[in-house]
Amino acid sequence: MFNIFPLKGSLEHVKGFYCDGVSVGLKPNGANDVAFIRSDVLCDVEAVFTTNQFQAAPIVHFKRYPENFQTNFLLINAKNANAMTGRKGIEDIDTLFASLRATYPALQNPIMSSTGVIGYRLNQEKIAQSFSKFDFEAKNSDGAARAIMTTDSFKKELCLRVEPENGTPFHLGAICKGAGMINPAMATMLCFIVTDAALPKADAKEALSYAVEHSFNAASVDGDTSTNDTVLLLSNGQSGGYDKEAFKEALALLTKHLALEIVRDGEGATKLVAFEITGAATSEEAKKVAKALSNSLLVKTALFGEDPNWGRIASTIGASGVTCNDETLEIKYDDVLVFNNTQRELDKEREMKAAAIMKQPSYTIHCDLGIGSGTFTAYGCDLGHQYVTINADYRS
Amino acid sequence: MFNIFPLKGSLEHVKGFYCDGVSVGLKPNGANDVAFIRSDVLCDVEAVFTTNQFQAAPIVHFKRYPENFQTNFLLINAKNANAMTGRKGIEDIDTLFASLRATYPALQNPIMSSTGVIGYRLNQEKIAQSFSKFDFEAKNSDGAARAIMTTDSFKKELCLRVEPENGTPFHLGAICKGAGMINPAMATMLCFIVTDAALPKADAKEALSYAVEHSFNAASVDGDTSTNDTVLLLSNGQSGGYDKEAFKEALALLTKHLALEIVRDGEGATKLVAFEITGAATSEEAKKVAKALSNSLLVKTALFGEDPNWGRIASTIGASGVTCNDETLEIKYDDVLVFNNTQRELDKEREMKAAAIMKQPSYTIHCDLGIGSGTFTAYGCDLGHQYVTINADYRS
Repeated sequence: MFNIFPLKGSLEHVKGFYCDGVSVGLKPNGANDVAFIRSDVLCDVEAVFTTNQFQAAPIVHFKRYPENFQTNFLLINAKNANAMTGRKGIEDIDTLFASLRATYPALQNPIMSSTGVIGYRLNQEKIAQSFSKFDFEAKNSDGAARAIMTTDSFKKELCLRVEPENGTPFHLGAICKGAGMINPAMATMLCFIVTDAALPKADAKEALSYAVEHSFNAASVDGDTSTNDTVLLLSNGQSGGYDKEAFKEALALLTKHLALEIVRDGEGATKLVAFEITGAATSEEAKKVAKALSNSLLVKTALFGEDPNWGRIASTIGASGVTCNDETLEIKYDDVLVFNNTQRELDKEREMKAAAIMKQPSYTIHCDLGIGSGTFTAYGCDLGHQYVTINADYRS
Repeated sequence: MFNIFPLKGSLEHVKGFYCDGVSVGLKPNGANDVAFIRSDVLCDVEAVFTTNQFQAAPIVHFKRYPENFQTNFLLINAKNANAMTGRKGIEDIDTLFASLRATYPALQNPIMSSTGVIGYRLNQEKIAQSFSKFDFEAKNSDGAARAIMTTDSFKKELCLRVEPENGTPFHLGAICKGAGMINPAMATMLCFIVTDAALPKADAKEALSYAVEHSFNAASVDGDTSTNDTVLLLSNGQSGGYDKEAFKEALALLTKHLALEIVRDGEGATKLVAFEITGAATSEEAKKVAKALSNSLLVKTALFGEDPNWGRIASTIGASGVTCNDETLEIKYDDVLVFNNTQRELDKEREMKAAAIMKQPSYTIHCDLGIGSGTFTAYGCDLGHQYVTINADYRS
């Protein structure tokens, strides 16, 4: 038995971790644009990266470390993805860390993470200015969470305190960014999770892969996959506490919360919709349908228009390539049945009820395929004018 | 040797075919909404339908005919897709044709095709009114082409006259509709092709499948697949002329032209862009990349914004799951190189040149993966505010 409590803030509650965010002029509006997260003692690292084959320089840099390496420092910049920059992009990271070591000699196996425009070299001079601006003893989660934002309209962070029955409490804290390019293969975003749990390496891998599958990988804004997607889990064991089930559940809660925050902040999104698929032949097929729905432009524009046009839902299911049958299919918006074999036409009353549900900021579209017992829930948002405005102009 | 000439108009030039379009009040603005195409003599039929598993009632109705059946009549309505209507939807078609036979007794194995909203029964009373309004001796391609339009902003038709050297000339004519929901598995549209060539049944299948693969299946507006996609080829042999190579080439030209018209008319589209992929490991992989690019929201919004942000092109290629390598990749906008291994950063001069190309109404984005010899060209359009406006409101 255990209890999980959310705490206000995020990284500052996790023992032995420090962080700060500063502005060095990468963002023209003077907002924070470089951050660090560090630990007093060396941390185990667990990572999940983008499936994009053109992985950005910081990811290639990370992978040069030997397996099971430990680190005590993570540097993050916004406005430049350091992607498609070739060998020079990796050399730039080495140069930066050489310079950081002069200021912060304890540096061991430092990691970098970047987000922003593809195809430009890092502005090393500006980023290096952060080294004299950082307070290395700070626990400034707010400043760090703000520094990693790009098109995000709000900062994303969370802390969970886990209290195992008769055990030592431990914490998980995370800061996260993401708003556009959220995709099916892996939601395009950065998420940095730290924990003071005494986490065994094998458990970390299992818990993180389960958590990512049902959170970031179930979230979708536009179906594109970036070159920089990263989820990092740093654990320093400083609380001395641990409980396998409690940790797994807390990590799943934490990532689910942050993934939904990202979807809710989808570029120009006004709705957060859960696509709950049941009755598919397999869970793999349920996932395929759920993602097809959450990525369909015609579905997304219908959500934006608050139009209970269930035909687009049905058509997308039929096009998704899974086993389905219109005689066993049932579609509900929350608890309102909009389609099944005996009620194929939407009467005025049910149409009005469905339309009312679609006016809410969040709701569930439930599709029971009536074939087997596969289930999966994906999370998506609508697509409105703001998405086009942001992405037609975005170069930051 | 042969010559192929485009003629003004479409179906009216093809011997033995008649068509008309009338208004029966399905479209609230009083525009034509029901059309027929018929032949004096029985026609062979070749068809390609949507890969969507929820095929609309007219498609199910078609498939009930025995293989190699012949027909002399095709009825088409707009505003209602007759999809997800179950058995009732098929019975409605039978009832309509029973009533049409009273007016037009020569009817044999009639075919129906529908486009519009999913999930509503056909308005039989209104559609049946067309039977007394049609001029069954008309060659009114313009009227028929207009009747099948939905969100199309212009009508789509074409006629090609083929003159084999020392042979009898023959014709191919087509009317076509499509603007939204254009997708990778099969472009969502209706295309009705008629020919008076003395076309052998086996050649028809081969020529149509080749033509569709490189035209409608290479066209993409938004990646969705409708329940009603249909390409029909009716041949009545009335010209007595035929040449296998000439027919194949003419059919490919005809479908390519109409597919590009559909992309150009993509809902709210302002650009027509060819994604020409070369150097892929296989042609299948080239196709995968070409379609990923033409379907990517981030690419499409960048086209709309006229932003030479090649990073989005590269990122989409990397995410497409094909063999690729950023050291062999080369990206050009028309003849302007924007990325290769030695020129990774876009200098001001090349950026301005690329931006100038993107201001054109159509251009080619050429990606050479530098891996093998696979090639494929897909056609796409940009995604602007109009797309959102049309699809947030569309119920017609």
